[in-house]
Amino acid sequence: DQAIKVAVLAGDGIGPEVMTEAIRVLERVAELRNLSFEFDHQLVGGAAIDAAGCPLPDATVAACEAAGAILFGSVGGPKWEHLPPNDQPERGALLPLRKKFGLFANLRPSICLPALTHASPVRPDLIKDGFDVLCVRELTGGLYFGQPKFRKEEEGDILAVDTMVYRKSEIERIAHVGFQAAMTRDKRLTSVDKANVLENSILWRETVNEIAKQYPEVTVNHLYVDNAAMQLIRDAPNFDVLLTENLFGDILSDEMAMIAGSLGMLASASLGQTSGNGLYFGMFEPSGGSAPDLAGQGVANPIAQILSAALMLRFSFGLETEAKMIENAVAAAIADGFRTGDIMTDDASLRQVGTKEMGEAILSRI
Amino acid sequence: DQAIKVAVLAGDGIGPEVMTEAIRVLERVAELRNLSFEFDHQLVGGAAIDAAGCPLPDATVAACEAAGAILFGSVGGPKWEHLPPNDQPERGALLPLRKKFGLFANLRPSICLPALTHASPVRPDLIKDGFDVLCVRELTGGLYFGQPKFRKEEEGDILAVDTMVYRKSEIERIAHVGFQAAMTRDKRLTSVDKANVLENSILWRETVNEIAKQYPEVTVNHLYVDNAAMQLIRDAPNFDVLLTENLFGDILSDEMAMIAGSLGMLASASLGQTSGNGLYFGMFEPSGGSAPDLAGQGVANPIAQILSAALMLRFSFGLETEAKMIENAVAAAIADGFRTGDIMTDDASLRQVGTKEMGEAILSRI
Ligand SMILES: CC(C)[C@H](C(=O)O)[C@@H](O)C(=O)O
Ligand SMILES: CC(C)[C@H](C(=O)O)[C@@H](O)C(=O)O
Repeated sequence: DQAIKVAVLAGDGIGPEVMTEAIRVLERVAELRNLSFEFDHQLVGGAAIDAAGCPLPDATVAACEAAGAILFGSVGGPKWEHLPPNDQPERGALLPLRKKFGLFANLRPSICLPALTHASPVRPDLIKDGFDVLCVRELTGGLYFGQPKFRKEEEGDILAVDTMVYRKSEIERIAHVGFQAAMTRDKRLTSVDKANVLENSILWRETVNEIAKQYPEVTVNHLYVDNAAMQLIRDAPNFDVLLTENLFGDILSDEMAMIAGSLGMLASASLGQTSGNGLYFGMFEPSGGSAPDLAGQGVANPIAQILSAALMLRFSFGLETEAKMIENAVAAAIADGFRTGDIMTDDASLRQVGTKEMGEAILSRI
Repeated sequence: DQAIKVAVLAGDGIGPEVMTEAIRVLERVAELRNLSFEFDHQLVGGAAIDAAGCPLPDATVAACEAAGAILFGSVGGPKWEHLPPNDQPERGALLPLRKKFGLFANLRPSICLPALTHASPVRPDLIKDGFDVLCVRELTGGLYFGQPKFRKEEEGDILAVDTMVYRKSEIERIAHVGFQAAMTRDKRLTSVDKANVLENSILWRETVNEIAKQYPEVTVNHLYVDNAAMQLIRDAPNFDVLLTENLFGDILSDEMAMIAGSLGMLASASLGQTSGNGLYFGMFEPSGGSAPDLAGQGVANPIAQILSAALMLRFSFGLETEAKMIENAVAAAIADGFRTGDIMTDDASLRQVGTKEMGEAILSRI
């Protein structure tokens, strides 16, 4: 069998530490399932700025092109915050990667396990049995990349312009991803827009309703973005798939992650075109940031990175069995009481562990 | 003394019921303080669609022009939801009123009283002593009104375009409102933007930093909108004034209102130009909606409407003493245990009351 090629971009902060655990987990799966991975480690973000002068060096892009998927850590930190936004690690690495590889579909499972509801800032009675919401965010359109985008002087004033553009075909494409995901879940989809104000949203809502006809089993409803921002807090368990355009998804998927409570548990997938075989080129990364305050202490939660690796196996390599092996091992480690600091409580039956021990707890349960 | 002219637009759902109480409170203040009000009741929203065929009839606009302020109830309901967005009560009444009267500054105090933290969906330990956040939202710029705004066919696809535009002068104007508000409060201002993606936000951040120099006592910080959506949930008490552009403010001020827990308590002011004397023409309305499910039962909380009337006295008529009289009476009624259903608990020392009784409890405490 040929080796499975993965570009590994660990990045900054806790990125390298949690990545180490994800790679160990993947190696273990390879061993058990007779697979072979080829990991190409490359610089990205602040680490790349320091070593190569820019957040996304050509060598890194080339490695991504040669791979079947990108396993991404996290980027950014106070060291690079003085740079102009365009040159900062987050913006300077993430946006070009998304554009270059056409990563139009951002999937963020926001899962609050019943055992971890205490970590949520929401009142326990509102999320008694936890919840499992999947945010499906369009990632290459809207205000992020729409043209024109400029600043100019006019009559002694300065004027800034950004343009929100969506094509119907882009909306159809992401809607299919949302509906297909809903079909594998609870078959409920909430589409978010601002159709009382935006032309983009009127087209969005129309198109989602059209595509919905191809998925008659899925129950669809529409929420204005302001209302969605409210309802997610009050009633997260009532949501299944949340479908949004780029900027609304940026805001709501972060809000949803906060509601889930344990950012260190949340993985994400950014998918590009399928190659016809149902597999996607994709980039897989934790939803949380580089957490510079935790970096280097060996205490960060590696689960988000490990679950991102599982998503990679599923979406980019069609290794569903192997993805499930990892996901089950994570669930087992949690069930057996292993907790990093971010998800710890004062329950004496739990065992607080560091990054490495959590990695081992998961590894040994595969 | 001349009568104080107020255009009263009660609207739909619970609007008329809660407006009745607000008017009674104003009449009581007039009596005690030897003032005289002239209330011009006009149709708006669904009620206007039914009676006059459009959500904002000319007679209503004329009455607003002739008045010193607009006291607004709430509009909308299932009856008008089948209409195209442009003709619906909310959009068809609110956006034209904002544009027509240049209501560029939306102030929404999100107050969670220590006695009412139970109504918040957020964990009690995160909001122990309640909180008081003021959202200052720019209301006439950005994606709402920016041109061009259109849809067209192109190469067999359909394309929708909205344009986000801000002029530096518009940002300066709203920033002054934010900083002036901060000066009367805890002197902390958080400005929200997406300066890592939007030209508008880069100009926004620059301009806010410039205006900040005129208010050296105010501590300023900047948050990306996605991060703000997270931090508000986790740490509402840490915010004082939240300054945002139009769309971000739409989302975050609703999120903030949900976090405060009792929408029925939250007032808002939308201010236009000052007439040089420090007074603003303005429109004053509850933050919550028309709550069609509660309408006609006499159970809706009138406090948001009553506090909106207090804001009107303060901002449009310079009647600070009178505004405070109302606000103190509301606080006293709450302290004395009066509760409408939305803010009730099972504490036996509290007294559950309807709209009218709550109005009376407040009235008698002025
Ligand atoms: C860093 C930034 C450009 C990015 C975005 O807005 O998409 C980030 O917030 C995210 O959600 O991945
Ligand atoms: C009805 C709608 C156009 C309006 C807005 O988006 O501004 C509403 O949500 C609000 O916040 O007052």
